[in-house]
Amino acid sequence: MTDISFCRDADRQDPLASLREQFELPNGLIYLDGNSLGPLPRAVKAAVSHCVEQEWGQDLIRSWNQHDWIGLPQSIGHKLGPVLGAAPHQVVCCDSVSVNLFKVLCAALALQPGRSKVLTQIDNFPTDIYMVEGLQQLMGESGCELVTVDASDIESALTDDIAVLMLTHVNFRSGAMHDMQRLTEAAHAAGILVIWDLSHSAGAVPLSLDIWQVDFAVGCGYKYLNGGPGAPAFIYAAERHHAAIQQPLSGWMGHIAPFAFSPEYRPAAGISRFLTGTPNILSMRALDSALDLFDGLSMQTLRDKSVALAQAFLDCWRRYPVLSELTLVSPEDPALRGSQLAFSHPHAYALVQAWIADGVIADFRAPDILRVGFTPLYLGYEDIFNAVQKLADIMASKRYLEERFQQRQLVT
Amino acid sequence: MTDISFCRDADRQDPLASLREQFELPNGLIYLDGNSLGPLPRAVKAAVSHCVEQEWGQDLIRSWNQHDWIGLPQSIGHKLGPVLGAAPHQVVCCDSVSVNLFKVLCAALALQPGRSKVLTQIDNFPTDIYMVEGLQQLMGESGCELVTVDASDIESALTDDIAVLMLTHVNFRSGAMHDMQRLTEAAHAAGILVIWDLSHSAGAVPLSLDIWQVDFAVGCGYKYLNGGPGAPAFIYAAERHHAAIQQPLSGWMGHIAPFAFSPEYRPAAGISRFLTGTPNILSMRALDSALDLFDGLSMQTLRDKSVALAQAFLDCWRRYPVLSELTLVSPEDPALRGSQLAFSHPHAYALVQAWIADGVIADFRAPDILRVGFTPLYLGYEDIFNAVQKLADIMASKRYLEERFQQRQLVT
Repeated sequence: MTDISFCRDADRQDPLASLREQFELPNGLIYLDGNSLGPLPRAVKAAVSHCVEQEWGQDLIRSWNQHDWIGLPQSIGHKLGPVLGAAPHQVVCCDSVSVNLFKVLCAALALQPGRSKVLTQIDNFPTDIYMVEGLQQLMGESGCELVTVDASDIESALTDDIAVLMLTHVNFRSGAMHDMQRLTEAAHAAGILVIWDLSHSAGAVPLSLDIWQVDFAVGCGYKYLNGGPGAPAFIYAAERHHAAIQQPLSGWMGHIAPFAFSPEYRPAAGISRFLTGTPNILSMRALDSALDLFDGLSMQTLRDKSVALAQAFLDCWRRYPVLSELTLVSPEDPALRGSQLAFSHPHAYALVQAWIADGVIADFRAPDILRVGFTPLYLGYEDIFNAVQKLADIMASKRYLEERFQQRQLVT
Repeated sequence: MTDISFCRDADRQDPLASLREQFELPNGLIYLDGNSLGPLPRAVKAAVSHCVEQEWGQDLIRSWNQHDWIGLPQSIGHKLGPVLGAAPHQVVCCDSVSVNLFKVLCAALALQPGRSKVLTQIDNFPTDIYMVEGLQQLMGESGCELVTVDASDIESALTDDIAVLMLTHVNFRSGAMHDMQRLTEAAHAAGILVIWDLSHSAGAVPLSLDIWQVDFAVGCGYKYLNGGPGAPAFIYAAERHHAAIQQPLSGWMGHIAPFAFSPEYRPAAGISRFLTGTPNILSMRALDSALDLFDGLSMQTLRDKSVALAQAFLDCWRRYPVLSELTLVSPEDPALRGSQLAFSHPHAYALVQAWIADGVIADFRAPDILRVGFTPLYLGYEDIFNAVQKLADIMASKRYLEERFQQRQLVT
C-alpha cells in the first residue's frame, strides 16, 4: 500500500467504499479522528431536523407516545445489540459513560457481598478511575476500594478478594486491546464480576458480550457509533443478573410505572432499571439514526478493513525515513489493538496542529501521543496514503515548530 | 376576562404579546402544557441546525474549542443566573434533574457530619424521593435516611437531627408553591441545609436564590425554559459552599484539568466540580439558544402576566356551571401557587384527551388531576377564553366518555 495506484485499486475493490456517501464530510478533509468524535451521517441531519421541527415543534408533548420518545432508551439499546453481540433486552441508552459506570459499579458491588475491591489498570481512561474514587469516597473502603495495577499485572491480581474487574477494552492512548474473553473467564474463576468499558471498541471491533459471559458493560455513543458530540452512552447487563440488580441512581425512568407517580420506588423489570432521569431526546434521536448505518453490516467486515487501513498506514509510515522520529506505541499485532494507532513524539501536540492545518484531523493525547483512528465506514486507502505523505512533509520541513502550532488550546 | 372582547383588549395591551412570534406553535393550537414540555423557539431550530451541520458536520472535533462546546455547561449556567437570582459562577448545566439531585444530596450530606436525615414532603415529585431512596439503599440509614412528611408538617419537622431539607418549590400536581425564603431560613435556624428543586419554577416565577440564602438547587431545562424534550438540567450551589463540595459522580469533566488525563481526581474549582461526563452538545445547544428568550426580560413581568392568565382562566371557569364538576386543587391565592392550575375530576384523563382532540393541549397527572400551565411567553388571554369554552363544551356534551378518550397511552 505504499504506492498510490495500489491504494486506489484497493479503494475500488472495497465493498464498504460506498458507505462514505452516507456521511457529511468536508471536501478534501481526511478525518482520522472518528475515535474521538464520529462525523455526521447524512441521515442524522434529517432525523434531528424532523425531531426538532415535527416531533417537538408540531406534535409537542404528544410525541412521547406518537413518536415513542419514551421508548428511545430501549429501542437504541435494541439497535446496539448486534453491534455488541448481545441478545435483545440487555442494552439501554442513557446518560454519560461516567454516570453509567457509577451505576454498574454499584450494581456489581451489591452482587458481591464481602468484597469491595475494584481492580483496574492505572492507565485506564481517567474518568473510569475517577468514578471508582468517587464511590470510594462516598462509601469508604469497606464499600468500595480502588485497586490499580499496570496492564501486565492484571491477571495475577485476580485474587478472590477482588469484587469487580473494571477495564476499558481498548486503551484510549495506546489502542492496546485486552482479550475480553480470557480476562472475563479468569475473573469469573476467582468469583470476580467484570465491567467492560467499550468506548473505544463499540462499532470498531467485533464483540460477543453474551458468548464471552460479560457481566456489565458501558460505552460511548459519540466515537465509532457516530451519534454526535456528547451523544448518550449505553449500559449492557447480562440477563442473568437482571432480577438482582440494584443501582442507586434510581430515578423515575427506571421505575416500573413512572406515570403512576408513586412515592415508593419499584424498579422496572430488566435492563430498564438502569434508567434514571428523562431521556435527552434530541441527542438520542441523533444516535438512534446513526445506528442505522450498522444495520446489516458485519462487524467482522468492518474490522477487516480497519486492520487493513492501519496496516496501510504502517506501511506508508515506514516508507518515510523522517517518520522514524515517531515511535509506535500501539501493538504491532493487529489482534492486540483496536481501531487506532498511537505514536509518541516530543512535539506530538504541534504535529497534530500542523497536520490539521494541512487538512488531516487526528488528535493528541497528553503527554506526547499522536493518535490516529481508522473508521472503515468513511475512510479509504488513498486517504491513508495522502495523510501519511502530508505528515512526512510536515516532519521534513519541521514547520510544526512554528509558534502557531505550539499554542495549547482549552481542549487538546 | 369572561368576555372575549375584554380578552382581545388585554392581548392588545400585553407588553409580552410579541414574544409569541419567537415560537413555532402549530396553527390553531392552544398550548397549556409548557409546564411539561416548552414549545420550540424559532431561534432554537436555527441553532440546532447550525450545531449539526456546521459545528459537528464541518468543524468536527475542532468545535470543542472553536465553538466552545467545552464551555457550554458554564455558559448555559451563566445565562440561567438572572432567571434564578444567582450571581455568576454558581450555576452549571449537566445531566438530568435526577442525577443532579443525587450529586447535591451527596454534597449536602457530606457537609453535615453527624446528621443523615433528608426531609421532604410525601407528595414531592417521585424522582426526588426515589433518588434519596437510592442513596439510602447504597449507604444505609447512617449515611442517608429518607424522612417524608405532609406539606403542612414540614416546618414542625425542621429539628436539629435533620441534615437536609429537600423540597420542590412548586408542586407538580397541585401547583402549590412553598415560601422558599421562609423555609430556607427556618431550616438554617436548625442547622439544616436546603436543596430546592426548581423544575416547576425556573422561568416561571421570580427567584432570588442568593438573597434567600439557598444552599443548593437543581432544575429542569425542558419545561418553562423551553430547552427541548429531555433538555439537560442544572445545578446551583451557593458560592460559600464551593470549596468544601465533594460529590461522588466525579467524572472527568469535573476535574481541574480534564485533558491532562491524570489518574488522580482533583476537583475543578467552583461549581464545575459538579460536572461528570461529556456534555450532550446537541441538547445543550438547544437549551443555550432557548435561554436567549429570557435575556433582558423581567421575571416579575412574566409572573404578573402568568398570574393574570390564571385569573382569566378561573374567571372563565366560574362562568360555566358545568365546569363546577371540576374541583380546583391549586391554591386560590396566586402568591401560593406557581404558574399552573390543577383540577381534579374522576374522568380527568379522558377530559384531557378530548380537550387535545379539540386543539387544546393540557395534561393529566395520576390519579385524577387535569393540569393547566400558563406560559406568558406565548399565551394570550383570548387563548384562555377559547380553551375554557372548549372544555365547557366537552363537559356539557359529555363526549369525553367516548371510548377513544378513555384508552390510556404509555405516557399519560
